[in-house]
Amino acid sequence: VAENNCKAEHIAVGSEILLGQIQNGHAQNISRILADKGFFLYYHSAVGDNLDRILQVYRTASSRSNVVIVTGGLGPTEDDLTKEALATFLGRRLVLSQESLERLEDFFTRRGRVMPPANRKQAMCIDGGELLDNPNGTAPGQYVVDKGVYYFLLPGPPLEMTPMLKNHVLPRLQQVFPPKHLESRILHLCGIGESDVDARIVDLTQKSNPTVAPLAGEGEMLLRLTATDTAERSARELIGETEDLLRQRFSRYIYGVDDETLPVVIGNKLRHLSASLSFAESCTGGLLSSMITQVSGSSDYFLGSVVSYSNDAKRTVLGVDADILEGYGAVSAETARLMAEGVRRLMGTTYGVSVTGIAGPSGGSAEKPVGLVYGAVSSAENTVPFKMMHSGSRRQIQIRAATRVLWELWRVLGR
Amino acid sequence: VAENNCKAEHIAVGSEILLGQIQNGHAQNISRILADKGFFLYYHSAVGDNLDRILQVYRTASSRSNVVIVTGGLGPTEDDLTKEALATFLGRRLVLSQESLERLEDFFTRRGRVMPPANRKQAMCIDGGELLDNPNGTAPGQYVVDKGVYYFLLPGPPLEMTPMLKNHVLPRLQQVFPPKHLESRILHLCGIGESDVDARIVDLTQKSNPTVAPLAGEGEMLLRLTATDTAERSARELIGETEDLLRQRFSRYIYGVDDETLPVVIGNKLRHLSASLSFAESCTGGLLSSMITQVSGSSDYFLGSVVSYSNDAKRTVLGVDADILEGYGAVSAETARLMAEGVRRLMGTTYGVSVTGIAGPSGGSAEKPVGLVYGAVSSAENTVPFKMMHSGSRRQIQIRAATRVLWELWRVLGR
Repeated sequence: VAENNCKAEHIAVGSEILLGQIQNGHAQNISRILADKGFFLYYHSAVGDNLDRILQVYRTASSRSNVVIVTGGLGPTEDDLTKEALATFLGRRLVLSQESLERLEDFFTRRGRVMPPANRKQAMCIDGGELLDNPNGTAPGQYVVDKGVYYFLLPGPPLEMTPMLKNHVLPRLQQVFPPKHLESRILHLCGIGESDVDARIVDLTQKSNPTVAPLAGEGEMLLRLTATDTAERSARELIGETEDLLRQRFSRYIYGVDDETLPVVIGNKLRHLSASLSFAESCTGGLLSSMITQVSGSSDYFLGSVVSYSNDAKRTVLGVDADILEGYGAVSAETARLMAEGVRRLMGTTYGVSVTGIAGPSGGSAEKPVGLVYGAVSSAENTVPFKMMHSGSRRQIQIRAATRVLWELWRVLGR
Repeated sequence: VAENNCKAEHIAVGSEILLGQIQNGHAQNISRILADKGFFLYYHSAVGDNLDRILQVYRTASSRSNVVIVTGGLGPTEDDLTKEALATFLGRRLVLSQESLERLEDFFTRRGRVMPPANRKQAMCIDGGELLDNPNGTAPGQYVVDKGVYYFLLPGPPLEMTPMLKNHVLPRLQQVFPPKHLESRILHLCGIGESDVDARIVDLTQKSNPTVAPLAGEGEMLLRLTATDTAERSARELIGETEDLLRQRFSRYIYGVDDETLPVVIGNKLRHLSASLSFAESCTGGLLSSMITQVSGSSDYFLGSVVSYSNDAKRTVLGVDADILEGYGAVSAETARLMAEGVRRLMGTTYGVSVTGIAGPSGGSAEKPVGLVYGAVSSAENTVPFKMMHSGSRRQIQIRAATRVLWELWRVLGR
């Protein structure tokens, strides 16, 4: 259902995609980010680093869409043809942007290097178009409008592309194609499986305003609610009602809304409580700490961790009793308890949180299979251990266990 | 470079892909499986469940490719239009296949069910074409040749699609387009920037056999070498020569081949030396440990880490001298040195490796800007600190710093 007359499509440029060496992750990412704001993609394409074939794809795209978003091929090498091909296709010249050139030279100077001559072509702008600032890399984006078609060229690295999509592309689309009023909200759930969620929202997923779409993540679930205004009700009201229903059904599992990931909501809660946190990690090997420290400002409440991968480290650094380690094993509620208490004491934090388990693929037994994980949350009042069972690859088990441990901590911290 | 005159492309049909609800994993999967056998895809496309748009995509595909592989949209519902659209596009009738109908009814009978009437349409075959048996589901594939274009329609579920690609599509392609022998190899580089690599391989990237293609990763670079047999030389020999040349030019930067990531090569080296490893992490917040422990069996050499995010943790857990911390600051070569030595002593490992820096976006100063990172590798012989300057977002700086630290460790361990 189109909310506006925007007909967008995405083109990924890069031979490595066509050879199957990398996943074309941008297609899904861009579709999802735009759909959230009521802009829909009608086609995805991918094409290699070949001038004739890129021109072919531009020809097809411009004949059927009015917004064309292209990713990749903006680098400094001769293989990077995206911008040059569009200039050729539109019959326009490439003009040096002095401002962009200075910004590029600055980028290299700040890193103590001289800009290689090859990078100069990144400062070229299609005549009549506009270069889009890229704060995270050397390749600026390109924006140009031609015969009613809006072209956006964005660099390939995801960490450069995504902010540019949000900061440059979306605002321009919203200006050119004012949407019907559309509102969307994402609820984050943890501690409950996909099929359990699906079974309990059958009535809601069949409604069309708002729509409720479940999305499975690693160790968590997202529910995306999207509504448009009707004559009687605002989109916000419609979403609010459905959110209330979902909160009644999934109260203990919903931990956040929109951009509120577990590390973010836990950080806010700890800051509010003036409390501090440390981890004792075994099977997650540092992942838990890495997730918490992805949030800027996490040093306000996160003091540090011990990755006690070996039994020696559990004993000597965390002070886990050797008899407990031998009697119950490293993967046990008892060891998890002593790890959490040990790291809390060592780091002097309000909360100490531990995780120990078998990430596999080797190391499992009949009694303690791959995927068995224990955790514990320790505070001044008490230490509460918990047990989990996860499936999947080694990496999936690590991610799912870390996510689940964060959820257990969130529950202890209270809403 | 075409190894035969097969010009293939892939079309994924399904609105859920365009909405970003699922990843179009088939595109990469099919590209990889076919490229392995010397067949290349020149375009990927995705289109929703809409007759007009599917016809538009068939028109474009048949004008530029001679093999068109379509996945999805072969189910029993009204939304499933892939086969019907192709019949319309080719101007051919759909004819009931009695054999396929019986096979379908059998499929349901074996599961103790009666075939719903809607499934009957799955037994319809495009006139002059051939249905392809699907042992893992109800939707047979469709094969049809029209005006020199070979069309393959395959069902969407990956566990049904992949065996059909291997058993039905590949043998037919190999018969129609006898392939040449093809060999490829990937070299991994770290410690050198993309433009520096590009500038030193201009002569090689212009050659066509083998081809040399650079790919930028986070904090590292890949060089992909691909060769085909000639009358005089085998593909393996051709690749070997170019690899030798590249190794002469980039000897100190090339750390691995094909699947050998830094955590893998470091693990192999440590195991070979019967050596052990620990980390003291500040700005990377556990990421370094998490990277090393993604490798199964890393407990053989990785004993543990301290994520010393606060200055207190650096002092009390790692024993970093308070005067050094105050005098030089937490982000300094001196602190990095004491952190590496401290964790090595604490964990009792052969090597202790540290990293401390400013990941940003806040916390930088004129003297110590965001992106400034120090590291050190400590062993029984000595402790060697090093300094880095990284750019990008908080997450990029963390990833690039961790990757660079692993590379410095790899250099210390020797080839």
